Amino acid sequence: MERIKPHTLSGFMELLPARQAVMDAVTDTIRQVYSLYGFTPLDTPVIEAADVLLAKGGGETEKQIYRFTKGDSDLALRFDLTVPLAKYVAMNYADLSFPFRRYQIGKVYRGERAQRGRFREFYQADIDVIGDGELDIINEAEIPSVIYQVFTRLGLTRFVIRVNNRKLLTGFYDLLGLSDKSAAIMRAVDKLEKIGAERVEAILTDDLGISKEDAGRILDFMSIKGSNREVLAALEAYRGKDPVLDRGLDELRTVAEYLGAFGVPEANFALDLTIARGLDYYTGTVYETVMTDHPEVGSICSGGRYDDLAGYYTDRKLPGVGISIGLTRLFFILDDVGLLSEDVPSAPCDVLILPQTGDRSGAAALATALRAAGIRAQLYAESKKFKAKMAYANRLGVPFAAIIGEDELAQGKVSLKDMGTGSQELLTAEEIVGRVSAALAGRAVKPIKE
Amino acid sequence: MERIKPHTLSGFMELLPARQAVMDAVTDTIRQVYSLYGFTPLDTPVIEAADVLLAKGGGETEKQIYRFTKGDSDLALRFDLTVPLAKYVAMNYADLSFPFRRYQIGKVYRGERAQRGRFREFYQADIDVIGDGELDIINEAEIPSVIYQVFTRLGLTRFVIRVNNRKLLTGFYDLLGLSDKSAAIMRAVDKLEKIGAERVEAILTDDLGISKEDAGRILDFMSIKGSNREVLAALEAYRGKDPVLDRGLDELRTVAEYLGAFGVPEANFALDLTIARGLDYYTGTVYETVMTDHPEVGSICSGGRYDDLAGYYTDRKLPGVGISIGLTRLFFILDDVGLLSEDVPSAPCDVLILPQTGDRSGAAALATALRAAGIRAQLYAESKKFKAKMAYANRLGVPFAAIIGEDELAQGKVSLKDMGTGSQELLTAEEIVGRVSAALAGRAVKPIKE
Repeated sequence: MERIKPHTLSGFMELLPARQAVMDAVTDTIRQVYSLYGFTPLDTPVIEAADVLLAKGGGETEKQIYRFTKGDSDLALRFDLTVPLAKYVAMNYADLSFPFRRYQIGKVYRGERAQRGRFREFYQADIDVIGDGELDIINEAEIPSVIYQVFTRLGLTRFVIRVNNRKLLTGFYDLLGLSDKSAAIMRAVDKLEKIGAERVEAILTDDLGISKEDAGRILDFMSIKGSNREVLAALEAYRGKDPVLDRGLDELRTVAEYLGAFGVPEANFALDLTIARGLDYYTGTVYETVMTDHPEVGSICSGGRYDDLAGYYTDRKLPGVGISIGLTRLFFILDDVGLLSEDVPSAPCDVLILPQTGDRSGAAALATALRAAGIRAQLYAESKKFKAKMAYANRLGVPFAAIIGEDELAQGKVSLKDMGTGSQELLTAEEIVGRVSAALAGRAVKPIKE
Repeated sequence: MERIKPHTLSGFMELLPARQAVMDAVTDTIRQVYSLYGFTPLDTPVIEAADVLLAKGGGETEKQIYRFTKGDSDLALRFDLTVPLAKYVAMNYADLSFPFRRYQIGKVYRGERAQRGRFREFYQADIDVIGDGELDIINEAEIPSVIYQVFTRLGLTRFVIRVNNRKLLTGFYDLLGLSDKSAAIMRAVDKLEKIGAERVEAILTDDLGISKEDAGRILDFMSIKGSNREVLAALEAYRGKDPVLDRGLDELRTVAEYLGAFGVPEANFALDLTIARGLDYYTGTVYETVMTDHPEVGSICSGGRYDDLAGYYTDRKLPGVGISIGLTRLFFILDDVGLLSEDVPSAPCDVLILPQTGDRSGAAALATALRAAGIRAQLYAESKKFKAKMAYANRLGVPFAAIIGEDELAQGKVSLKDMGTGSQELLTAEEIVGRVSAALAGRAVKPIKE
């Protein structure tokens, strides 16, 4: 037979079993948190009609899209989970109850240039709250709590959720009479951390033709820093000059005020006026999340408030707020900076059963009893030397081996070997269920170590 | 703005939230059972290089494949989970421990002609046990137990796992000197149930040129029916005439013998010599699963033993045994025949919190306390009349509403309304956690009703 060399495409993550177990632990944690906050799971197709997916049109993503025909159909693979959500909500408007809170964890596709840490197929884990016509500010105040719980439960402690409000920025540029340049100014200010105040000022004056005085005002505004109380106090100096700015300030104050009630410590939260979130899409609160010890990787969870989810499908006003975690990239980064725990249980079973006799029905019955008790059990029935069987158990990282030889059969018992300590005991099946259940309880390990 | 009509492609399942919750319950149950049997989760890409995916070549599926180019790459969407498994095992052979037991639940793609109940994007839920060179028969004997647990835990009781062994058939045709016609004979025999013995006999004699005597022998053999004991006894009459038939009989006997130890009642199991599983791929035990009251839908879980998983990638002999559930089709069928339970909890939260005052920090704190206790909570903070809020709670099917008005705030308590009974009590946050936790415990409902 002619043989083809098996390979996986570059830019596509495919993990070995032990790593996949850690990835699954990360995904499960995110799913659990999203569920706790009352988001309902959705599952939309990976393939959509190209005209539907590209209704919003243009943009940088369009070049990256996997688009192809099948028969007469012009098709495309989804490149995010937001456009499919917009389609879903516009289509099913009459059947949904608003606010509509959904989470979706699924693969999306972007044919980016292949490079380390960039993926062409990757998971996004999104939540969105969609209002019908309007949406209370409390929904924006709740989002930092979701982010905080996700990362805390994953095992990360050293992270900061940075929050800003786009209305503050819009109002401020209005005040300076620079509204028409606000997008360009925001792009320049976005680089503050990377290139410093001096070079941003140069861009503002030289490239954008802003007066030195206004450039100074912009940089003064952007350099407001400190505790929530300090930032809000400094911003009060701007109150009363522009209605949009005032509204942004009220919203930001509300978000900060509810932090405590939503269980977010101030240490994991910062009001940061430099956050704008590139897209023109956002209109209110915006979020970024950075790892304190790894600012170089950028935001690991971002999002914000928008006014118009599905304007290209419907004339209904559907405002919302949402966040997205680039799960595949996050996993790659955590692995890369050495933050993935080696202690997450990754064995495919809790007990490996090793029959040493011709009749394996006792072994099969033990497997059945363990599974009925919720214990993951595997029967290893291959004809191998005992040493090879133990080597297999060790390679899989199985916590317990249950050995059934002639002696054990004669006594109606099983030898349970704790693979960690090496100790071995002769027990009944019932005793094994109790022993293993007790050992497994509280064995949960967070996927991120610090 | 120009508006595009939002739509989802035909042949792609996209569910409303309440139905999605049931689908997720089905998927979770399958995942849990697969885990209990010591299968490790894998996640392979949806897109593969076309030469890799089509290495096996030809076949009916090839026309259905979604194949396209991106840049210089010839790509294709996976059409099953078996070829990606073969690729994975051949590629990662040195890093895997054998027997290698994996499960994968993922979407696959086939551009079939659109018709009711046929999907172009659908989930498969597969398990396979892969041996290195050899694989013990116990692995084949264990599979009915996995199938039994999956469907029992889903809530189905009226189903039968039909089992045969391909060696029995191969050996029997050898015996008649009809080996060269065995594939065609099996295809004819496969229709026994649909078209009856007379018409199958006509195909055998008229189309395949088999003597009337041999056709009678074939139909006699195929009509062996009864309890496991009766079928095996009848088959013993054929022993000693062909070594392959003898081996098949031994294997079938072993599979039947271990049923009890693996916890499979005889009522859910039948030895059935007419099962062949179309593909040439299978070489030993083969499985089909039929719903007793709905034979018309065919097999809802099939598979078998094969000798050569990855011959087109590697010269290593990798025998295995596996089964596959076409999850999307199964869900469609269960819905179609009215077997999906309406009682599966599908609300996005367990407690909907309704603040009736301007300050919602008490409501936020209650949400935080509930979530910390593992209770799914949602804050409904929109400015609506109380009646509209209750209508929202009812539409979502939320089991509890927690109302915080001025009176409640003054007493530091919350009114908990049981949406099912309509009864309402004034309680502390702590009491609410206790009350709701108790109500939710044991609320699990199987997704299939009968």
